Amino acid sequence: MAQQINAPRGMRDFLPVEKAKREELIQKAKAAYLARGFQEIETPILEDLNRLQSGQGGDNEKLVFKVQKRGEEFTEALAQGAELADLGLRFDLTVPLTRYFASNQGKLPRVLKAIQTGPVFRAERPQKGRYRQFIQCDIDIIGEDSMLAEFELISASLAALEAMGVSGATIRVNHRELLLKSIADLGVSPADALSAMISIDKLDKIGIDGVCEELGEKFGAEVAKQAASWLSSLSALDTPEQLKSLFETFGKKLRYDPTLVRGMGYYTGTIFEIEHPHSSSSIGGGGRYDGMVGKWLGVNVPAVGISLGIERIVDLVPDTRPQTPALVLLVSEEQSYAMALQAQQGLLANWRVRIDRKPKNVKALLTELSEQGFSHFAFLGESGEVDIKPIS
Amino acid sequence: MAQQINAPRGMRDFLPVEKAKREELIQKAKAAYLARGFQEIETPILEDLNRLQSGQGGDNEKLVFKVQKRGEEFTEALAQGAELADLGLRFDLTVPLTRYFASNQGKLPRVLKAIQTGPVFRAERPQKGRYRQFIQCDIDIIGEDSMLAEFELISASLAALEAMGVSGATIRVNHRELLLKSIADLGVSPADALSAMISIDKLDKIGIDGVCEELGEKFGAEVAKQAASWLSSLSALDTPEQLKSLFETFGKKLRYDPTLVRGMGYYTGTIFEIEHPHSSSSIGGGGRYDGMVGKWLGVNVPAVGISLGIERIVDLVPDTRPQTPALVLLVSEEQSYAMALQAQQGLLANWRVRIDRKPKNVKALLTELSEQGFSHFAFLGESGEVDIKPIS
Repeated sequence: MAQQINAPRGMRDFLPVEKAKREELIQKAKAAYLARGFQEIETPILEDLNRLQSGQGGDNEKLVFKVQKRGEEFTEALAQGAELADLGLRFDLTVPLTRYFASNQGKLPRVLKAIQTGPVFRAERPQKGRYRQFIQCDIDIIGEDSMLAEFELISASLAALEAMGVSGATIRVNHRELLLKSIADLGVSPADALSAMISIDKLDKIGIDGVCEELGEKFGAEVAKQAASWLSSLSALDTPEQLKSLFETFGKKLRYDPTLVRGMGYYTGTIFEIEHPHSSSSIGGGGRYDGMVGKWLGVNVPAVGISLGIERIVDLVPDTRPQTPALVLLVSEEQSYAMALQAQQGLLANWRVRIDRKPKNVKALLTELSEQGFSHFAFLGESGEVDIKPIS
Repeated sequence: MAQQINAPRGMRDFLPVEKAKREELIQKAKAAYLARGFQEIETPILEDLNRLQSGQGGDNEKLVFKVQKRGEEFTEALAQGAELADLGLRFDLTVPLTRYFASNQGKLPRVLKAIQTGPVFRAERPQKGRYRQFIQCDIDIIGEDSMLAEFELISASLAALEAMGVSGATIRVNHRELLLKSIADLGVSPADALSAMISIDKLDKIGIDGVCEELGEKFGAEVAKQAASWLSSLSALDTPEQLKSLFETFGKKLRYDPTLVRGMGYYTGTIFEIEHPHSSSSIGGGGRYDGMVGKWLGVNVPAVGISLGIERIVDLVPDTRPQTPALVLLVSEEQSYAMALQAQQGLLANWRVRIDRKPKNVKALLTELSEQGFSHFAFLGESGEVDIKPIS
């Protein structure tokens, strides 16, 4: 019997036309990064579970898909009521990257400029636009403590977006230290800073009044009053000294946002969020996380990265036709298969060539394949000749 | 404290130079397939566990990494002693492909010529050359019952290998029906055919005597005697009618091997194994599996595929330099970062350009980066000028 059959909940199959667009965008972003001296690396899809849940991943650590131990180890763990899983699917590319740098430091350039693209997994409740498996496309610079890293990441990310056909993106910038100082100035203790950030992060959604109310509930009326004063005066704030050289270089591509939070606890310096007028949510983001590699290595190593949200960028960019035009070559009988392959070979310099057996209803086939991006067709002649015509 | 830290057991990190080579090979294979009208598709890394363990995956079903249920579902399953996992990591790309075709048939071309590359996972005991995560690169044709599918797969696979720089590959070919007939002729009952195949599959390792001994132990002396006679007379066998047109077209690229088994139970027609004189094990393989899609769909759909073993091909091919030469641009101070980005932009037409801060020991940096494929360097002049020199 036939079964109702689908991809797992919250995960997606990609049809050929969708996949071609995704690949094209990713290859264009990669090319922009490679041209600027970044190098591609790869880590496994799985990491040891205790590494994924070591307190560096924030709320994402609760969303790990856990992989069961196997064989006797599983049986024993079950009998003992111990942890049944030993591996997990990565929820981002940053935690694995810091682990990778610590594992391979001796074989890597002293300053690693890394490109990573690949799937990450989060056991979220599936909803519109949120998937349990999705692609991240990250660049990170590890080992560079100067602002050169920020200059390069901003420049390369903007170039990658342009290469993908996304113009008009702007990057909101803040500095975690400045944010923490602002929060301290409100009268919030350092231990409560993360909780205050979570409230401030809602500014877009609930406005100044909402944020102040929430801060008041958490930390009392005086903090709420200070916050109201701070949040109302933001537009008058000057670009801070730490970010000045970035703003001088990138001009209106950047916007200083003193309330930009970025959810992760691991950021230590500049933080970024990339926005685009046609996208309601950010299309990328990142920041400096100088403490993370040290967690594994025992010695701090400066690090900063920007991640592009390919899933959202795909929706921003119109579909394109492939550069090499594609034709359908129709053959009649087995005796001509070898000849069809020869004809195909001869056409490859100018065409992508798909071979199909000539069906009874040629028009239906060509209509179907025209939706797949095939623009031309030809019947294979008796001596191997082809007469190429557009699919009308 | 620093921790000893590595990728999970049996899984690999790829260094930049290794990753570049792997990507280059995969892109070349894909380009050869795309040129021949194949279309890339993608399925999730995870599939529902009951689908992965539905009896189509042979021994690989025992090697599934199982993903635990989450939240209340997990707690309930644990309390009830029920199955604790609901998802699994795919062990190949074929089972997911047949599921994909069944799920999406209405949106796909009637004949799907699919390219898939991606990681698969098997919880094998890690050993030299065998990994728990590895890449497969498959092409499959679904919906074509004529030998056109075999013609195209062989032609495209050989072209992909050539494009990757692997020449001299040959493909051993057999037909599952012929193999089953040979096994029946030995006096083995149809129910025991798979067990007999497992013995015959060891021919390379244990020779004719070993195979006959094993068949004798399983099915008695008469079967062993018949097998000895069959296996000794193989070289005299003619190419069978079913495969004749393939041999006429591809000549010495193909070799008829009446004992070729291919492990999976799902094959129904032609079977392939790609070998290369410099590789001790096969570098690819596949076959026709006309029954698998029907398992999900309730209606049989013809299907045939060939998978390339990228992991082995990587070892066969010498390392290459990237086409665009790469240079290191050295800058001195923060005031020059913007100028360095401008200089980089101007050089991109001809160079990959990495920017680094000029260290005290320039020679050490250049030596290090030369190992990463950077062949030239330049200091950024005071007015932004660059004087490019080879790294000697």
